[in-house]
Amino acid sequence: MGTRLGELVERLGGQLVGDPNLEVIGIAPLTDAGVSHISFLSNSKLRAQTAHSHAAALIVSPADDDFVAAGYGGARIVTPNPYVYFARAAQYFAALTAIVPAPGIHASACVDASAQIDASAHIGPQATIEAGAIIAAGAVIGAGCFIGREALIGEGTQLFANVTFHAYCQIGARGIIHSGAVIGTDGFGFANEGGVYIKIPQTGRVLIGDDVDIGANTTIDRGALADTIIEDGVKLDNQIQIGHNCHIGAHTAMAGCVGVAGSAKIGKYCTFGGAAMVLGHLTIADRVHIGSGSMVSRSIAEAGQYTGFYPLAKNAEWEKSAAIVRNLSSMREKIRALEKTIKTLTNQDEK
Amino acid sequence: MGTRLGELVERLGGQLVGDPNLEVIGIAPLTDAGVSHISFLSNSKLRAQTAHSHAAALIVSPADDDFVAAGYGGARIVTPNPYVYFARAAQYFAALTAIVPAPGIHASACVDASAQIDASAHIGPQATIEAGAIIAAGAVIGAGCFIGREALIGEGTQLFANVTFHAYCQIGARGIIHSGAVIGTDGFGFANEGGVYIKIPQTGRVLIGDDVDIGANTTIDRGALADTIIEDGVKLDNQIQIGHNCHIGAHTAMAGCVGVAGSAKIGKYCTFGGAAMVLGHLTIADRVHIGSGSMVSRSIAEAGQYTGFYPLAKNAEWEKSAAIVRNLSSMREKIRALEKTIKTLTNQDEK
Amino acid sequence: MGTRLGELVERLGGQLVGDPNLEVIGIAPLTDAGVSHISFLSNSKLRAQTAHSHAAALIVSPADDDFVAAGYGGARIVTPNPYVYFARAAQYFAALTAIVPAPGIHASACVDASAQIDASAHIGPQATIEAGAIIAAGAVIGAGCFIGREALIGEGTQLFANVTFHAYCQIGARGIIHSGAVIGTDGFGFANEGGVYIKIPQTGRVLIGDDVDIGANTTIDRGALADTIIEDGVKLDNQIQIGHNCHIGAHTAMAGCVGVAGSAKIGKYCTFGGAAMVLGHLTIADRVHIGSGSMVSRSIAEAGQYTGFYPLAKNAEWEKSAAIVRNLSSMREKIRALEKTIKTLTNQDEK
Repeated sequence: MGTRLGELVERLGGQLVGDPNLEVIGIAPLTDAGVSHISFLSNSKLRAQTAHSHAAALIVSPADDDFVAAGYGGARIVTPNPYVYFARAAQYFAALTAIVPAPGIHASACVDASAQIDASAHIGPQATIEAGAIIAAGAVIGAGCFIGREALIGEGTQLFANVTFHAYCQIGARGIIHSGAVIGTDGFGFANEGGVYIKIPQTGRVLIGDDVDIGANTTIDRGALADTIIEDGVKLDNQIQIGHNCHIGAHTAMAGCVGVAGSAKIGKYCTFGGAAMVLGHLTIADRVHIGSGSMVSRSIAEAGQYTGFYPLAKNAEWEKSAAIVRNLSSMREKIRALEKTIKTLTNQDEK
Repeated sequence: MGTRLGELVERLGGQLVGDPNLEVIGIAPLTDAGVSHISFLSNSKLRAQTAHSHAAALIVSPADDDFVAAGYGGARIVTPNPYVYFARAAQYFAALTAIVPAPGIHASACVDASAQIDASAHIGPQATIEAGAIIAAGAVIGAGCFIGREALIGEGTQLFANVTFHAYCQIGARGIIHSGAVIGTDGFGFANEGGVYIKIPQTGRVLIGDDVDIGANTTIDRGALADTIIEDGVKLDNQIQIGHNCHIGAHTAMAGCVGVAGSAKIGKYCTFGGAAMVLGHLTIADRVHIGSGSMVSRSIAEAGQYTGFYPLAKNAEWEKSAAIVRNLSSMREKIRALEKTIKTLTNQDEK
Repeated sequence: MGTRLGELVERLGGQLVGDPNLEVIGIAPLTDAGVSHISFLSNSKLRAQTAHSHAAALIVSPADDDFVAAGYGGARIVTPNPYVYFARAAQYFAALTAIVPAPGIHASACVDASAQIDASAHIGPQATIEAGAIIAAGAVIGAGCFIGREALIGEGTQLFANVTFHAYCQIGARGIIHSGAVIGTDGFGFANEGGVYIKIPQTGRVLIGDDVDIGANTTIDRGALADTIIEDGVKLDNQIQIGHNCHIGAHTAMAGCVGVAGSAKIGKYCTFGGAAMVLGHLTIADRVHIGSGSMVSRSIAEAGQYTGFYPLAKNAEWEKSAAIVRNLSSMREKIRALEKTIKTLTNQDEK
């Protein structure tokens, strides 16, 4: 199952240079694409490769088009952002062969009589849906999912198998929650009395906007008294931990294994590299970019790129540098002593 | 549904200054509380805010009471530790509206005939309970949970949805295990023969005391030959990994994403900041506090606060400092050369 | 239930010094072993302990045998690698008492009519198996597992309870996947258009070789266009994240909480300490060993041991050293200034 180039361009835009009736069946990387594929050039540095590509058509930027046209004989789709066009074309091809879960409730699912399941929604095998939960039109609840009391799953949102979505929490439209994610678990809140921890009930919710993706085995704590907020368009990778009462601004993206402690307020359009960590109660401005493996221990008021991890070295070298790091203050003392001595010497010389 | 201030104080103690017949319906932060809420002042620095609070009553310490009384017109509950009182009051209000899972076994659960389920326990939909498992009085097994052969879930302990609790492991009374947690998975034990790993069967158990909370998607390995031990009152946040044969002392708390490698022995009353890591076979004394993102690579014999993470900086500055860290030994050489030269100069001068 | 020493040696090899008819019931550490246990000496430094061991028999290396024989009166099994022998003997004893899941499909499992389930496979309670999936001979699918469309579970491979194994992915023979693991979740792939993320469909698979172990709550992303590859004999501990299109070479082992970003290519026979992180698109040679908590930010072409984490210190000392690390470039400036001054002084002296 494929499509004509002309139809693709009609749907996704771009300027087609070539035969609109050419049939293509899918999308592939530049070097792997066969004669029935389209491919794309998103990085100008690789444009020399296009001359050897077997692809039926290439998605290229206006800036690369002349170069590509000179060496490559297939069709071209010219568009300002080839990578975005690739994403949309890939979505288009994926939709052609997608197996959409059928509307309806699987016989093995346990759905409370008071839950409201839209007729167009899909509830998979072995799922559990508690009293008062609302599953909107076109939503997909995978096998083995748990949806708590009065939770809300928005229109067209898909939960893959084995997601846990706790009571009273909400997610908007067109979201994706991957397997093993846990939304709305209790935050880590305790009062300490003579060394013993007294649990503080976590009575807030998790409120998630539209177009939010949440990765596999990611956990998002419900608020303690107020709510945990995830704004529209946020993208969270796998195994991320978001503490209670955090607020993540719209269109912020976090790579795998990131941790955000409670009550952190993170701006819009931020990015976090894998395994970055944010301490609690911090405020991070919009458009802040945190490098992988970096610990954010203070609020950041200024947009920009921030990093902080110990550089890797051969083990013997690391042992040497780490030993010096441990004693940096003595090194500083030595330098100060040297400065003093030299000052004395210089003064003597000047006499 | 609410309560009278007088009833609250009767149950939780504290000295009430104000009308015992005043009705309150819940608890809220100082700045959000409405006229039907009580609130609390746990941080003296914020006491100026109390004058503007709409709360019906405030929980305050004796030290702050005079100041608060001067500016705030509502009722006061005076108690030595307002934050602990807040926790208890919040528990009280939460209990008023809590929906307690009904005793009994859901029709969709698969419970082996030889399992012993107390009549007051709740077994949720789609749960599986294997042969010989014991579920004590008042325990709650959430939807989709798996309880392995001869495992023991203590009195009043609650497992949220989709917990996996493996064979022969035990947890005591009043515990909480959050969704996605896996207790008693095999430890990572292999012998290496010419590069190929040979699995060592993990035949120990996980033994968990009373009043232990375990966070969402946290994993605790069963012991290799002996058992993994989690003592009373331990609180583990989400996405923590505890290796085989670890021993965690009573009332120790770990924030999210902490990892503890196998056979580590950790004392009582310790705290671990988020994403702290502990290498295997180490011993950590009581009352040791490890900062977030810190790697514990040696045993710690002395109570205290320990930290070790690379400070965050603007990316360009980090690149500069990281390059120097990589070459710290050459910097040390330069200083030594300087010291030598200066010594020569000084000696010459002294001649 | 136990075995005779003679039978053990017949099956596992080694040279028995002692009575082949002696009955032993299990294996235990040197200091805990009772008179019906066998034990082992894998670390020569501990050989003095053998004189006090109550074990019926000891597994020892030829190098330690004379020393052990002098002080220890029980039987000995002499073999070049006592730890490997211990692993095999422990497997042997574990098999004697193992409760093997019975072949067949539990009545509560939801298995699509087009799935191919070998008659000798076990499908546990509440499992879901989608259309076209293949479960090979002797495979065990635990309670609550989800197996996606056309996925393949190889011969004798065991999935513990609550594993999610997505559509089209494959695992070979004799593998183990622990509870809560998610195989084949979407990779984190987006194109960015004016700040908004456009999802790139993840249409590759995860292909896993033979004899691979995958830990609890570990996640492995499916490829974007091509596949994610895990070669034979790889051992992954708990809570590991493997990004899309990664390639992990045979017999590489990773400890808990490791993260590998997308498209990383990791060699054979590597080891990764707990919480080590690897950035995307890197290439790591064979036999590279990465220390715990280390961030791999560049490709590594040479086998060896690499490390990089900030050393732990008392909090006050860390604060001091971290402040200096932040200002290392000013320290370098000071040293350069000193060098210059001294050069001037030396030149003056030489005049």
